Amino acid sequence: MAKAVLTPQAENFPAWYQEVVARAELAENGPVRGTMVVRPWGYAIWELMQADMDRRIKETGARNVAFPLLIPTSFLEKEKQHVAGFSPELAVVTHAGGEQLAEPLVVRPTSETVVNHYFARWIQSHRNLPLMLNLWNSVVRWEMRPRLFLRTTEFLWQEGHTAHATSADAAAETRRMLEVYRAFMEETLAISVVAGEKSPAERFAGADHTFTCEALMRDGKALQMGTSHNLGHNFARAFDIRYLDGDGERRLVATTSWGTSTRMVGGLIMVHGDDHGLRLPPTIAPHQVVIMQLDEEDEAAAAAARIEAELRAAGVRTHLDARTHTSFGRRSVGWELKGVPVRIELGARELASRRATVVRRDDRSKTPVPLDGAARAAADLLEEIQQGLLTASRTFREEHTHPVTDFGEFTRRVGDGGLFLAAWSGAEGSEQALGQDTGATIRCIVDADPPAPTCLVTGRPARHAVLIGRAY
Amino acid sequence: MAKAVLTPQAENFPAWYQEVVARAELAENGPVRGTMVVRPWGYAIWELMQADMDRRIKETGARNVAFPLLIPTSFLEKEKQHVAGFSPELAVVTHAGGEQLAEPLVVRPTSETVVNHYFARWIQSHRNLPLMLNLWNSVVRWEMRPRLFLRTTEFLWQEGHTAHATSADAAAETRRMLEVYRAFMEETLAISVVAGEKSPAERFAGADHTFTCEALMRDGKALQMGTSHNLGHNFARAFDIRYLDGDGERRLVATTSWGTSTRMVGGLIMVHGDDHGLRLPPTIAPHQVVIMQLDEEDEAAAAAARIEAELRAAGVRTHLDARTHTSFGRRSVGWELKGVPVRIELGARELASRRATVVRRDDRSKTPVPLDGAARAAADLLEEIQQGLLTASRTFREEHTHPVTDFGEFTRRVGDGGLFLAAWSGAEGSEQALGQDTGATIRCIVDADPPAPTCLVTGRPARHAVLIGRAY
Repeated sequence: MAKAVLTPQAENFPAWYQEVVARAELAENGPVRGTMVVRPWGYAIWELMQADMDRRIKETGARNVAFPLLIPTSFLEKEKQHVAGFSPELAVVTHAGGEQLAEPLVVRPTSETVVNHYFARWIQSHRNLPLMLNLWNSVVRWEMRPRLFLRTTEFLWQEGHTAHATSADAAAETRRMLEVYRAFMEETLAISVVAGEKSPAERFAGADHTFTCEALMRDGKALQMGTSHNLGHNFARAFDIRYLDGDGERRLVATTSWGTSTRMVGGLIMVHGDDHGLRLPPTIAPHQVVIMQLDEEDEAAAAAARIEAELRAAGVRTHLDARTHTSFGRRSVGWELKGVPVRIELGARELASRRATVVRRDDRSKTPVPLDGAARAAADLLEEIQQGLLTASRTFREEHTHPVTDFGEFTRRVGDGGLFLAAWSGAEGSEQALGQDTGATIRCIVDADPPAPTCLVTGRPARHAVLIGRAY
Repeated sequence: MAKAVLTPQAENFPAWYQEVVARAELAENGPVRGTMVVRPWGYAIWELMQADMDRRIKETGARNVAFPLLIPTSFLEKEKQHVAGFSPELAVVTHAGGEQLAEPLVVRPTSETVVNHYFARWIQSHRNLPLMLNLWNSVVRWEMRPRLFLRTTEFLWQEGHTAHATSADAAAETRRMLEVYRAFMEETLAISVVAGEKSPAERFAGADHTFTCEALMRDGKALQMGTSHNLGHNFARAFDIRYLDGDGERRLVATTSWGTSTRMVGGLIMVHGDDHGLRLPPTIAPHQVVIMQLDEEDEAAAAAARIEAELRAAGVRTHLDARTHTSFGRRSVGWELKGVPVRIELGARELASRRATVVRRDDRSKTPVPLDGAARAAADLLEEIQQGLLTASRTFREEHTHPVTDFGEFTRRVGDGGLFLAAWSGAEGSEQALGQDTGATIRCIVDADPPAPTCLVTGRPARHAVLIGRAY
């Protein structure tokens, strides 16, 4: 048997992850600890994700803008919880233009403070509301335990910021964006997620409520894929953002923020990847179909070009790989590692029988098809593969979600991974107790009846059903 | 006569510029001196520019990637000319994660150093060449005299970086990207530019040759709109980037870099704007046509919606303005300020005669057209307006380009603005002498015979024809 291309997932999942990121040429470490260089294949995936997410965000009425990278320290200090949460992670510019600065500047860890400063200037009356903005940029948060895509000192993301006349409007916006994220993750990334509210210990610094989309990785750990925050009046009060309502009264606006990042690429790898590499959902595959021309004869080249033209005409992102001097094995392994959904293999042998071989990445099956129908056969597979990946992701998550009512049983099983549905009291200190004993956290509160009358951790009366698990 | 909306250009051009940027809601100053907040209308223009430029860059074979924002100081110091050029403009992170850093980090002013560090890792053999990457990001250069879009402490841009086997290949790439930029500026921005080489004093720090696209603003000052640098072996030597050639010899690669930025938005404003505001070329107008519904009757609403649907079906970016409770004057002035190429005015009076009024932004002419043909009439104007703006820009530049052979005459005329075609010796010190005496600089060397046998500045034998002018 041939040597495995990657360390098998079952043997060492973190090693497998690192190897996929490197061998599929997605990214590598930057020169400064925790930073990341995103390579062409990884960035092309990100661009397709961006384009799709951007369209969804614009459909809600939000408009894109740019805000500065450098924020005066005094801005951060205006919202007490916010600065307390972010202080340990800040990168600080103290010198610029050859001089020491009078006031140090932070490299934005997120832009609530500077955006809300401008909200106060732009919002005068109810006619200016809602104000809905979105930023595509990068932010810096100093990370002690960095890991490519999942937790990097600098990451690429979008951050939305909105202001509303009423608390109800802000609450609705927070929920709406949570749903935009959920739909994006399922429809575009083919990743099944649970959407719910975060518990207080996991809330964004400065938010009244934080909502999250949580996915389950193949090693049984959870990943927070995106969050939506209802900031209530906290930032409006800190930055004095008021509007004149219809009755001539000056009222505080209510604000929200929401974000998703390159972290989702990490989720994509760990939800869909297998021992042969990445498996990309066709929606965000830079090449949806790769045609592998196996022989350099004119006839093979002509047939490959014909299929390429057909696929392109059908709107399929197609790449013709004509590297006939590179070994077949090396080429196949490379496209498998990179997760290309469908390959069409085309050589002298296939041509002689007027056939091509269509290879699916998801189940690695190979099917001979008539040459004339190869393009259509490949194109038809894309939707099936997309749905298959989503179904597999949902099945895996459901099969690895366990109701649990006994803390002893939970502590024995938590190391096996998965999500645990439990009853929770919401009592102060209970989250810390949970984490200390098990390394697990409440991933989110779910919209269901508590599975037991008393809290899994404290034994006090249950108030919520929650999903608990170890997480990235 | 109504009070002018803006300070007239002829009265005070810098005031006019500031007012357009503010009143068209393009951008405003950030909280840190020299930084910029780009507002929705300004950012939508930038996004359209980005999409068009991105397509052109990808057509050359370059692929998008991301590199870190923070660069170790030691990287910058590897190329002596580079660090000397950029040192005075650097923003420096000295503290992060609550601690003083062992090595200070610079916020990237440009990414040659970090990209070339990775080139050395990724390039082993001639099969890895050419390596062509492009980055969309923001960079920070501390500015003493900032001005929105034109000169900001942080700006948005694309920076391309390529490595090649031979000097000839790098020279060809430098020229090719100059041509990509020139074509983009003329075809997309409708701005006529002169493309040529920079003189030594204006060269990029670390380049053997810098090429530029120079445009002429309506106040007679020049603007450098984009540059392409042949870096020769300078960075390859500093970062030891070598490849194994076909004969098994280890050779230095030759590298290039090239960039365009949000500065082009400033050029757009100053080339096409008039006393009524911005005039956008249709290619990059967020709304190409605005339908102004003037009465709130159902019939007007229905007619406006019909025209909107027709325009959208024809692929025209269309906005329906149904703010019938806002005054006509306020709405017209707003769309004029924002530079929307075509407006369709539709009210009860027009409807009664089954007509609409089509208003061009370029010449502000109004034409009544039959209702049924309004959408087509508006759509047909777009190409004409695009061409008209380009022609006007070319005519203006040509009419304000003056051959000059006498230094005394030049010093008398330079204050009137425009470009001066002159003979230049290339002698060391001559550029400095020129600048000190006149505040002007050599904008670029042009591909023409020197217009005189001796240098305009030094009187020594002429070697080049150059364009000289005052610049932003």
